[in-house]
Amino acid sequence: MTGEFDFIHNLLNKTTKNKPQFSAVKIGIGDDCAVISQNSKTDLVVTADLLVEDIDFRLDWTRAEFVGHKALAVSLSDIAAMGAKPLWALVSIGIPEKIWKTDFVEKFYAGWFNLAKKFNVELAGGDVSRTPDKTVIDSIVAGETKKDRAVLRSGAKVGDLIFVTGKLGDAAAGLRLLENGCRLDSEKGSRKNFIRKQLAPNPQIEIGFKLSEKKLATAMLDLSDGLSSDLAHLCRASKVGARLVAEKIPFETNLQQVLRQNEDVISFALNGGEDFELLFTARPKDKNKLEKLFGEKITCIGQITDDVEKIELADVSKTILLEPQGFRHF
Amino acid sequence: MTGEFDFIHNLLNKTTKNKPQFSAVKIGIGDDCAVISQNSKTDLVVTADLLVEDIDFRLDWTRAEFVGHKALAVSLSDIAAMGAKPLWALVSIGIPEKIWKTDFVEKFYAGWFNLAKKFNVELAGGDVSRTPDKTVIDSIVAGETKKDRAVLRSGAKVGDLIFVTGKLGDAAAGLRLLENGCRLDSEKGSRKNFIRKQLAPNPQIEIGFKLSEKKLATAMLDLSDGLSSDLAHLCRASKVGARLVAEKIPFETNLQQVLRQNEDVISFALNGGEDFELLFTARPKDKNKLEKLFGEKITCIGQITDDVEKIELADVSKTILLEPQGFRHF
Repeated sequence: MTGEFDFIHNLLNKTTKNKPQFSAVKIGIGDDCAVISQNSKTDLVVTADLLVEDIDFRLDWTRAEFVGHKALAVSLSDIAAMGAKPLWALVSIGIPEKIWKTDFVEKFYAGWFNLAKKFNVELAGGDVSRTPDKTVIDSIVAGETKKDRAVLRSGAKVGDLIFVTGKLGDAAAGLRLLENGCRLDSEKGSRKNFIRKQLAPNPQIEIGFKLSEKKLATAMLDLSDGLSSDLAHLCRASKVGARLVAEKIPFETNLQQVLRQNEDVISFALNGGEDFELLFTARPKDKNKLEKLFGEKITCIGQITDDVEKIELADVSKTILLEPQGFRHF
Repeated sequence: MTGEFDFIHNLLNKTTKNKPQFSAVKIGIGDDCAVISQNSKTDLVVTADLLVEDIDFRLDWTRAEFVGHKALAVSLSDIAAMGAKPLWALVSIGIPEKIWKTDFVEKFYAGWFNLAKKFNVELAGGDVSRTPDKTVIDSIVAGETKKDRAVLRSGAKVGDLIFVTGKLGDAAAGLRLLENGCRLDSEKGSRKNFIRKQLAPNPQIEIGFKLSEKKLATAMLDLSDGLSSDLAHLCRASKVGARLVAEKIPFETNLQQVLRQNEDVISFALNGGEDFELLFTARPKDKNKLEKLFGEKITCIGQITDDVEKIELADVSKTILLEPQGFRHF
């Protein structure tokens, strides 16, 4: 049995072996989006995200509007991670008979269009099919960047600073609350916010786009698997290492509330998936510019090192080697 | 409960309502592909097809290689129907644990790449997910046409001739044989061919592209639901009617073999889905040119009339009104 990483690695080999002589695809499998030649001034970036009932969402934990919102949001987050502007989308949806008879589809699209409107994304097409049992959604979004200006995972250089947007671990906290039987409607305050972040995340389109527009990010991806895993992806692609400063990892104070005994809030924030915030690297000389532009929306959490694929976590007393422990797809 | 047509109609209303001020999407939901502005010389066409286990394919009837072939073929058929040249593709695949442990995925991609190579299609990305129970595939293919030259469903004019490629009903015959317990490996001759056509259809990329290149097709779509249904789609989009000549409908002589008692071979050919041949209309003055170019690969089966959305079938003795009876998605 192979994991998703091996799967993608095998596919990469296959696509390389089968590459046509004249290829429109500049960057294929392995980044947040594929990058495709579009015209002399711009590139197209495109991503697909499959959401499967009882794997990626549970109908008794969420609302149809949130499923529509999240399907689009996770793909928009990939678009954001390339520094691109979203343009158009396809939605393929497979629905079992029993769901087809409800108002699920109507509400799903209400949630989808509500988010699409915010970012000027146009629904161009897709497919609809019956399924034997579970609902399944494939969300495809395309965006554009200036030519050769998509921000890849592979551009980080030794000495670059590491930044994240937002706070980490909120979505994982929301997931835990849901698993513990809490529901959005019956919660308040930060617990409600955690659940909302899990069910209806906000893609960081503006920040991603501005970073690319102003050439401030050297590498970028979105935090879907959890910081420890996603930073490992970035380091692997860039052939570098990273050193994180534990006290800089940003998290909500109330995150403590959802922790189990002996659980450490930093580890929780480092390993929690689905925040759909951005992780990016930048040249040290641009630090002031970044802080001026984004203020508290971003946090510098460490620096890129030459210790290839090693991720260290330093706190006041010691430095430990970090193992990627975020969400694995298989 | 609504059918797929109502579903698409509702979505069309929603997309119109939610259309951004500056839109890249020239043709959205309702044709074989969406058409999107790409640059000053070309348009991008893009399609998505969802294939669900036990709805669109059965693992005990087919081979993993054929599933990969068919997933790509059905999308390529949509690209062909726009008169486009295929460029790149995404594949999202959801796989249950038990399938993940087999060589299904390896063979699926072998079948996919085998067909992709034939048409110079490059795999640009996609997604992979676990599913609770059934395998599901979303196949996305993009192609390009010269600017404003995608062949739409809506261009048929009164007096245009109606053509199809290939023979009709083969794939439906294959499906019936499979339902009756026949399998590819144990059959020979035309029965084997019928089953192969059902499991691994051939998209008519060359004919579609040539029709568009030489500006010979006024309207086109691919035969996925069956001629009676697909011609109804064309007539609705073009706001015209059609008159078919029964004796011109092309089918394999051996199709008779799979018919039930009292079943009529013309009806079977008219209503059988999944042939993935092309249905197109052309100006009468181009008939000779078409026959010279394509010979026996195409057949003229009737003519477009001004009797909006009415489809007549004329044989030697009488003319009947044809009801769309092909495959319905719901």
